Amino acid sequence: MPTTRFSSDDEGIDAFYADLAEHDLQPLWELTGLMTAEPNPRAVPFVWRGKHLSALAERSGELITSDRRVLSLANPGLAGAPYAVPTLWAGIQYLNGREVAPAHRHSPSALRFVLSGSGVFTLVDGDPIAMEAGDLVLTPGWTWHEHHNTGAEPMAWLDGLDVPLVHYLDAVFFEPGDGSPADATAERSDSERRYGCAPGIVPVGEVPVRPHSALLTYRWADTDRALTAQLDQDTGRSAVRFVDPVSGRDVLPTLRCEMHRFLAGNQPLTRQRVGSAVGVVLRGSGSIALGDTRHEVAAGDVFAIPSWTPVTVSAESDLDVFQYSDAPVLSALGLYRERSYSPEF
Amino acid sequence: MPTTRFSSDDEGIDAFYADLAEHDLQPLWELTGLMTAEPNPRAVPFVWRGKHLSALAERSGELITSDRRVLSLANPGLAGAPYAVPTLWAGIQYLNGREVAPAHRHSPSALRFVLSGSGVFTLVDGDPIAMEAGDLVLTPGWTWHEHHNTGAEPMAWLDGLDVPLVHYLDAVFFEPGDGSPADATAERSDSERRYGCAPGIVPVGEVPVRPHSALLTYRWADTDRALTAQLDQDTGRSAVRFVDPVSGRDVLPTLRCEMHRFLAGNQPLTRQRVGSAVGVVLRGSGSIALGDTRHEVAAGDVFAIPSWTPVTVSAESDLDVFQYSDAPVLSALGLYRERSYSPEF
Amino acid sequence: MPTTRFSSDDEGIDAFYADLAEHDLQPLWELTGLMTAEPNPRAVPFVWRGKHLSALAERSGELITSDRRVLSLANPGLAGAPYAVPTLWAGIQYLNGREVAPAHRHSPSALRFVLSGSGVFTLVDGDPIAMEAGDLVLTPGWTWHEHHNTGAEPMAWLDGLDVPLVHYLDAVFFEPGDGSPADATAERSDSERRYGCAPGIVPVGEVPVRPHSALLTYRWADTDRALTAQLDQDTGRSAVRFVDPVSGRDVLPTLRCEMHRFLAGNQPLTRQRVGSAVGVVLRGSGSIALGDTRHEVAAGDVFAIPSWTPVTVSAESDLDVFQYSDAPVLSALGLYRERSYSPEF
Amino acid sequence: MPTTRFSSDDEGIDAFYADLAEHDLQPLWELTGLMTAEPNPRAVPFVWRGKHLSALAERSGELITSDRRVLSLANPGLAGAPYAVPTLWAGIQYLNGREVAPAHRHSPSALRFVLSGSGVFTLVDGDPIAMEAGDLVLTPGWTWHEHHNTGAEPMAWLDGLDVPLVHYLDAVFFEPGDGSPADATAERSDSERRYGCAPGIVPVGEVPVRPHSALLTYRWADTDRALTAQLDQDTGRSAVRFVDPVSGRDVLPTLRCEMHRFLAGNQPLTRQRVGSAVGVVLRGSGSIALGDTRHEVAAGDVFAIPSWTPVTVSAESDLDVFQYSDAPVLSALGLYRERSYSPEF
Repeated sequence: MPTTRFSSDDEGIDAFYADLAEHDLQPLWELTGLMTAEPNPRAVPFVWRGKHLSALAERSGELITSDRRVLSLANPGLAGAPYAVPTLWAGIQYLNGREVAPAHRHSPSALRFVLSGSGVFTLVDGDPIAMEAGDLVLTPGWTWHEHHNTGAEPMAWLDGLDVPLVHYLDAVFFEPGDGSPADATAERSDSERRYGCAPGIVPVGEVPVRPHSALLTYRWADTDRALTAQLDQDTGRSAVRFVDPVSGRDVLPTLRCEMHRFLAGNQPLTRQRVGSAVGVVLRGSGSIALGDTRHEVAAGDVFAIPSWTPVTVSAESDLDVFQYSDAPVLSALGLYRERSYSPEF
Repeated sequence: MPTTRFSSDDEGIDAFYADLAEHDLQPLWELTGLMTAEPNPRAVPFVWRGKHLSALAERSGELITSDRRVLSLANPGLAGAPYAVPTLWAGIQYLNGREVAPAHRHSPSALRFVLSGSGVFTLVDGDPIAMEAGDLVLTPGWTWHEHHNTGAEPMAWLDGLDVPLVHYLDAVFFEPGDGSPADATAERSDSERRYGCAPGIVPVGEVPVRPHSALLTYRWADTDRALTAQLDQDTGRSAVRFVDPVSGRDVLPTLRCEMHRFLAGNQPLTRQRVGSAVGVVLRGSGSIALGDTRHEVAAGDVFAIPSWTPVTVSAESDLDVFQYSDAPVLSALGLYRERSYSPEF
Repeated sequence: MPTTRFSSDDEGIDAFYADLAEHDLQPLWELTGLMTAEPNPRAVPFVWRGKHLSALAERSGELITSDRRVLSLANPGLAGAPYAVPTLWAGIQYLNGREVAPAHRHSPSALRFVLSGSGVFTLVDGDPIAMEAGDLVLTPGWTWHEHHNTGAEPMAWLDGLDVPLVHYLDAVFFEPGDGSPADATAERSDSERRYGCAPGIVPVGEVPVRPHSALLTYRWADTDRALTAQLDQDTGRSAVRFVDPVSGRDVLPTLRCEMHRFLAGNQPLTRQRVGSAVGVVLRGSGSIALGDTRHEVAAGDVFAIPSWTPVTVSAESDLDVFQYSDAPVLSALGLYRERSYSPEF
Repeated sequence: MPTTRFSSDDEGIDAFYADLAEHDLQPLWELTGLMTAEPNPRAVPFVWRGKHLSALAERSGELITSDRRVLSLANPGLAGAPYAVPTLWAGIQYLNGREVAPAHRHSPSALRFVLSGSGVFTLVDGDPIAMEAGDLVLTPGWTWHEHHNTGAEPMAWLDGLDVPLVHYLDAVFFEPGDGSPADATAERSDSERRYGCAPGIVPVGEVPVRPHSALLTYRWADTDRALTAQLDQDTGRSAVRFVDPVSGRDVLPTLRCEMHRFLAGNQPLTRQRVGSAVGVVLRGSGSIALGDTRHEVAAGDVFAIPSWTPVTVSAESDLDVFQYSDAPVLSALGLYRERSYSPEF
């Protein structure tokens, strides 16, 4: 330890450091890595391949009898923790035909993003939300939720949760249900009926104040239409954010959700954002540069974006990417920054 | 003046009152009507008949050359003021085929509600908003606006403004345009493209903070779909509020807009609200009781609802009523109250 | 009526206008004065002299037996209405020694600003607020309030209310008390004990969300200290705003309160603000230009500032002016503007 | 690994798990400890003794030449990390007479709580804040700050930061100053002059919207007065929160600060709160039960309160405890809960 930087008394300092340790103290002046000019994440940029995820999820369906059949994406930089990035969970959940994942609730919040298939609905506090490819479905913190596959075919989707963050904050509460699936059918959800009919048209009466969105699902047809309408012909890009239709805030207090479209041959832009994110390719192919490394990606690929990593997307065929991040956390705490610039390559 | 209630010195009090008057003072104890147990409006409940409004608007189109051809609805209780209720303006604006109402802007905010026809668009700060039957269009305070009738047919619509309120508050600012109509066409509005594609799906980036809605029009097809989805089969009623899709607040800081649907034979409910409102029948027929008087109404009829007036609607045929009110003002000032109860008849 | 501007058919237009009138309609194109380039208030700038107010209040104390002994300041521009400006009430309330003004409550909000004396306390929902010279005391809308003069001397203070505004909005509710004065003494108010000890130090627990300030009184010693601390030596001016200590918002949803200090020989600044205000001189003397007219003022003088009137204050001796206005209303409705500039004289 | 719970195919599952690991995936159904009924923190309740902290800080002053002479309190449950609890830093900073800790800034926010002494001031973005015993001083995220000891005596204080949280979120930015101390003196701070004169009395003009408090210091005399005024005679307890005087929000977006007073023989109450906290005894003595263990504490002792730990304080002599926590983080993310009950002993 290069203590001579801090004292001329070599013996004294050794004794002093031993006394500090004995009293559960550490000398700040010897600590390094706490304050860095810019974020220096342990998590690494990483891509999980959709073809592996699909195949392994299918094997889990054949082999595993658990009713929470989820493959958790574990970032190699995080020392074995089952987390995609330090704050966010990403998992592939797999439900066989006619299966039910029974009810529970927990303080962490979740989103489900459907990559393919149909026939499943999720009950959120009793409200049935049908799930089809491209749909985003929310199960906010402390809401009861269960998944029903009413079809014969298995279905897989991406689970995104703030579990790592809530666990870090020592704020996890969990309550199992009574084990018996609800007797429900996949009617139209009350949430959609009230808040999903049209932009800015809501029931008369007081607008509810909740920590999460009043609308619990965002349908692919709607997202696709918005991406098409907002496409910038010059850059070949378009991007939407999913927000609570009665507050404009992020859909969940801990999770921001976005969908990005890049037309083939788009004009690339490099972005850096404080905070961690996970992306998944819904459709198309191209390359995503994460820091210095360029990855060829295709539908089903999931990737981790550690904080402040430069990201540049170039589409080969028209590319739709869903992304969730902890940006609302950074924003709420006054820590959010972002910047974008033309890539150098 | 029954001054003896307040003094035993009759002569002294006369001299005193004269001195008060000389110094521009008035004795509170002699003033009555300031503090009432409940609101006691001067405006009266009133109905203007659609058939008269149409016929007279048409005559104005033939006879009058002004480019702001508006018939102002004047509540008989308001001593000749051209106001439907103390805070709200209601007018029928009439634009002949190929006519333009040129640009200006003013601190009062306006809404346009189209009763029939098509072919007109309104430019709001350069953004072209097409207008068709059942549409609600906003021209918020201090935005430039002009109306273009691109068709051959005349068109009439209902203008709703907060002019009386803004005038009362001595806050009117007005600026005329340069007189030459903008060279614009009725493309899709930028406001709809960005905020009107789907509930809760908005452009990535900071959500704008504005005193008025980010969405400048609410289309009848959307409103109709929401009314249908939210219909309560037991009561035969449904009601939606129009809000800013990124804040959930009323569309304008001074005006709340709602659409109410009553099925034939609906179960009536009596409502009282603090603040003034104006209603207009878009479709159907029935009776509207305003206080003690019941009015048979049909499409095109406009009615004034003074503050705290009990309102009960009974549909004969399915009835759609658009309503705007000063409720955001009352709410912002902590003065809003409402109550509802089963009617006694 | 110069109708020829709008039609070539003189006879037709006369008949048309008659028909409009018969159907309670007015032609907008004939209406003038609705839309002006800048606010054009009916209320006039005006000064009520403190010496008259004092003398007449004292006479009311001798002559009048009412328990709401208030002289209402009536702006000469307002056609006999007992209002200082269109939205604001100003009155001199006078309470003889040992008198009580019994409890009532009303939806309008009130402030009391004490010009001199002591010995009175006001109960606000049971919380006793002592009143001394220079103190500002709030009785927010719908709070029960009564005034007790525990001393032998009469006391007079300035009442400021939003009664004209609430009356205009048809939102007045009033409820009398049971007539018997509360058995209370002028201890320290709970409101001060909790929210008035020190800036930013409040009870642990959820901060209450109320339309009005959690603190019901602002003491002269505090105001004086803040004015002294914030004095700009270059301009000889200082000005503070009274706000809710737990929200930073104006003390009442309809009323903004400020205190301004001008040192003798201050560098003057002309201000124009949208909305109406009332000022009162607490201390000192000088001149106040309201529009084109300069008024010499002294302690006790009350003045009306109609909307957008240029105001310029020049102190002869150090001058403290309390002011209340309807600025929160204008701000909440997106109608507030202000500007300031060096005066031209 | 008890895989037999999840499959009957022992060999297949081993191969499957190996394939998962190879592809950086983990089986959720084998993961335990993620979802617990209640928070289950790794950090342990712990007390650092003031006498050791003082003695070791003094030794650092004699021995160490660093200009950030800080002893970092390291919770024994956190595997060697220099953090008091997972989200919060606690350190004892020691500045010799005439010493300066030169300027830098960083995205983490800090508070300084002075246990004894005087003669130091901290410059926050150029505003000099004097520091005396019992004072709370803020250096919000990304503000430049430096400490000047103008006296001859050394001074030590408690540093509280959100460094662990900001580090976890990969949001640390740091910028050193140019190394030369500012030429400043300990005049009254501008922050106090504007926002610290009196509750609810602030400069006229727009109230600033900032992520942190407009007031950068809370003086002990003020805190003491508030604790005295709000003392509950029945329970012998009183507690205040420090908030932004113009928003009522916590002083920093990540840190809540409170001061608690317990009179000798107070009626104890047990509290549990989600989120982590650090306490320090300013004055007095007594016992603090953290979970199942009771600790006798005296002035200068610092203690760590992991999430959801039951805390019960019993004063022997009148006891003042300053506490900071990550409660604003939990609240902003919708994760905060608390409960309190009479202790069982």
